[in-house]
Amino acid sequence: MKKFTTLFALLPFLLVAQSHEENIKKIYDETLTNSPIYETLRVLCKDIGSRLSGSPEAAAAVEYTKQVMESYDFDTVYLQPVMVPHWVRGSKEVARVVNSDIFGNYDMICTSLGNAIGTGEGGVLAEVIEVNGVEEVNQLGKKVEGKIVFYNRPMDPTLIQTFRAYGGAVGQRGSGASEAAKFGAKAVIVRSMTNRHDDIPHTGSLRYNPDYPKIPAMAISTNDADKLSALLKKQNDLKVYLESYGQQLPDVLSYNVIGEIKGSEFSNEIIAVGGHLDSWDVGEGAHDDGGGCMQAIDVLRTFKALNWKPKRTLRAVMWMNEENGLRGGREYARVAKEKGENHIAAIESDAGSFLPLGFSSTGTEAQRAKLQSWKDYFTPYGVWQFDQSGGGADIGPLKDQGTLLIGLRPNGQMYFNFHHTPADVFETVDKRELELGAASMAALMYLLSEEGLE
Amino acid sequence: MKKFTTLFALLPFLLVAQSHEENIKKIYDETLTNSPIYETLRVLCKDIGSRLSGSPEAAAAVEYTKQVMESYDFDTVYLQPVMVPHWVRGSKEVARVVNSDIFGNYDMICTSLGNAIGTGEGGVLAEVIEVNGVEEVNQLGKKVEGKIVFYNRPMDPTLIQTFRAYGGAVGQRGSGASEAAKFGAKAVIVRSMTNRHDDIPHTGSLRYNPDYPKIPAMAISTNDADKLSALLKKQNDLKVYLESYGQQLPDVLSYNVIGEIKGSEFSNEIIAVGGHLDSWDVGEGAHDDGGGCMQAIDVLRTFKALNWKPKRTLRAVMWMNEENGLRGGREYARVAKEKGENHIAAIESDAGSFLPLGFSSTGTEAQRAKLQSWKDYFTPYGVWQFDQSGGGADIGPLKDQGTLLIGLRPNGQMYFNFHHTPADVFETVDKRELELGAASMAALMYLLSEEGLE
Repeated sequence: MKKFTTLFALLPFLLVAQSHEENIKKIYDETLTNSPIYETLRVLCKDIGSRLSGSPEAAAAVEYTKQVMESYDFDTVYLQPVMVPHWVRGSKEVARVVNSDIFGNYDMICTSLGNAIGTGEGGVLAEVIEVNGVEEVNQLGKKVEGKIVFYNRPMDPTLIQTFRAYGGAVGQRGSGASEAAKFGAKAVIVRSMTNRHDDIPHTGSLRYNPDYPKIPAMAISTNDADKLSALLKKQNDLKVYLESYGQQLPDVLSYNVIGEIKGSEFSNEIIAVGGHLDSWDVGEGAHDDGGGCMQAIDVLRTFKALNWKPKRTLRAVMWMNEENGLRGGREYARVAKEKGENHIAAIESDAGSFLPLGFSSTGTEAQRAKLQSWKDYFTPYGVWQFDQSGGGADIGPLKDQGTLLIGLRPNGQMYFNFHHTPADVFETVDKRELELGAASMAALMYLLSEEGLE
Repeated sequence: MKKFTTLFALLPFLLVAQSHEENIKKIYDETLTNSPIYETLRVLCKDIGSRLSGSPEAAAAVEYTKQVMESYDFDTVYLQPVMVPHWVRGSKEVARVVNSDIFGNYDMICTSLGNAIGTGEGGVLAEVIEVNGVEEVNQLGKKVEGKIVFYNRPMDPTLIQTFRAYGGAVGQRGSGASEAAKFGAKAVIVRSMTNRHDDIPHTGSLRYNPDYPKIPAMAISTNDADKLSALLKKQNDLKVYLESYGQQLPDVLSYNVIGEIKGSEFSNEIIAVGGHLDSWDVGEGAHDDGGGCMQAIDVLRTFKALNWKPKRTLRAVMWMNEENGLRGGREYARVAKEKGENHIAAIESDAGSFLPLGFSSTGTEAQRAKLQSWKDYFTPYGVWQFDQSGGGADIGPLKDQGTLLIGLRPNGQMYFNFHHTPADVFETVDKRELELGAASMAALMYLLSEEGLE
């Protein structure tokens, strides 16, 4: 009996006897046939819902993903403590045009930017001045004093990569408030970050520059931005009234959630795969980034389901607080350094649970060349873009430890239909596309684990 | 003044002075910035709706697309008459399990297959026998006599290309009724053609073999198919009652809708691009194939918008009756042959308005090699798969005229969530993905027009 047990324990090592092509097909087959992630994502989105750092829902999500990983019998599942900011929106948000010659007064569809202070009772009432980004505010200087600055730079629809279009416009959301406060503006309103013309407001982080006063900041829908812009062309004394109650509460103890399967040969070499568990407080954080979390868990689940023992140590990590602080990603890297851990690679899925098209990467030329040498294993699965640079926000802090940073690159055309909005709900995620993303990362984890990066 | 007019008339020819890369970028930019197809598709889906051949809605769609093309000032817009079948569903459809030991009786979610006869008053009541496809019916032979045959072969989820999974399962829908009638079955029920497990019934064509009696045929949702299959394993005398009222009315005069821009140098060489204007009578025919029609029109609109005169003749064609007869595609090819027209290539978009990933083709080795030589122009736009064989149902009849047949290949992962169902509605189409498909076909039309296939 002892002998049989020993033989059985050796079975997982037989995986190397098959070709990489065969093993990768097993991974995709397993995921597309048996993966539970569509259901676990449903629970995360529907039963828990949005989960901003510091919220009870974020705490519930920590507990839920820990339980899910424990149920898969990973070698270790543990929580890594991290203090996170606790911003709350407050219950009321108003962005009202009060003196339109055409429409009189009307409410715009709005949402406070994350981390923004509220106007409080009494609100802010001021004339509006439209600008095409922070550069223009700096040109205008004191002309914005006492006004509400309306940042209306659109995303560029001709950029095929929507994330580049986002990158070209999001500066006004991140630093627009402080740039305007520098010259005495009372508040800012920002065009929502999407290519669409619709009625959905997009929230997202701003960062206050400590050198300037904090002023309220709200996003308005693109339809309302277009309308406001058109009105301003006819009437330059247009006034807007803002009211909001956002505030930063004291930091809260939260956690990164980590599951691990120990490597059989090179256990000191760690490969992490993950997403961020927190989301904005609107919608359900389905694409951003519940799907990425469930995919990461499923990568390790697939190894267990196939009874494979990886050569290197695999970790699934749910980072906390990507959206408004990145505390989880920073703490994870800090602890890794402190413990002398060797992360050879880290993969993040945080660009939506859409059809996977490739992997972006940041690392040495040799690391990236090794990654790109595996491209042909993936083309049968539609994953073909390996040349872009990139990675992920949460894994970024690992960069100075020599870790190869890898980002799953899904189809990005629809991402900004949902990003940071009430529309980012479970129903917008396709089961097969979610699974294909998980399988693609599992296949890459398999190659990284078998081959390493030397 | 005369001189200026002549100069202006020459301007369109200047297009060749720029590189293909530059001109293709102009096409994508124009489409992503100015294309009206999201709105024209909305009208087709929301104001007209489903448009089965022979229906008033199909007639309205003929008129609408003709008007749209006329508004773009193409050189010619005309209707090509074609007689089409006129199948109607009738108002009531029942598929009821009547004697379940567990559930007593309950209704399944069902839809008659297109072209199917109804049961009429009184319905059909019989024991059910489950099979895994037409092969099994032929093995069972007379054992299916007097029974309702339940075709329950699922699509294979491990096939990355969902159209292949569809191809592997759809035979039971197309010929299952006649194969069962051959051995005396009373009716058939068919598992819906989708990878999903849900409550949406998928209709689609069947073809009766004239050698056997016509028997009723209905699809049931995959959830109901799974449930019925589970019940049958415990209770083999399970009976189902079917009631339906489908019937084939006399053929109706309808039309292919054709718009044309005359070639400036090789006007006798025609390049057609199109989709099919008819749809099933459920949903709105958004992905199948309203989007393809609007994309085809937009290809020609883009040439007009850019003030480009193509070297070869470009046609946008809305074929009628792809779903249950292919009469439009056949008539178009017949007339082309009769007139001695030379179609060097035909492109069809009929695989959903999702992210375009490539072009499939059917033709000579030289024709396909020429097409594939253009691949690098498309990779910056995410269009990279050029090696698959294929084309499209409506352009298929042009094959024996030596035409290179080309199919737009979009992301197929979500197609069978909607295909032939009430869920195929406008809201499931993403504006940018619809536009990217149009721009990709316009870019290919541009290359075909400039370079030809010699």
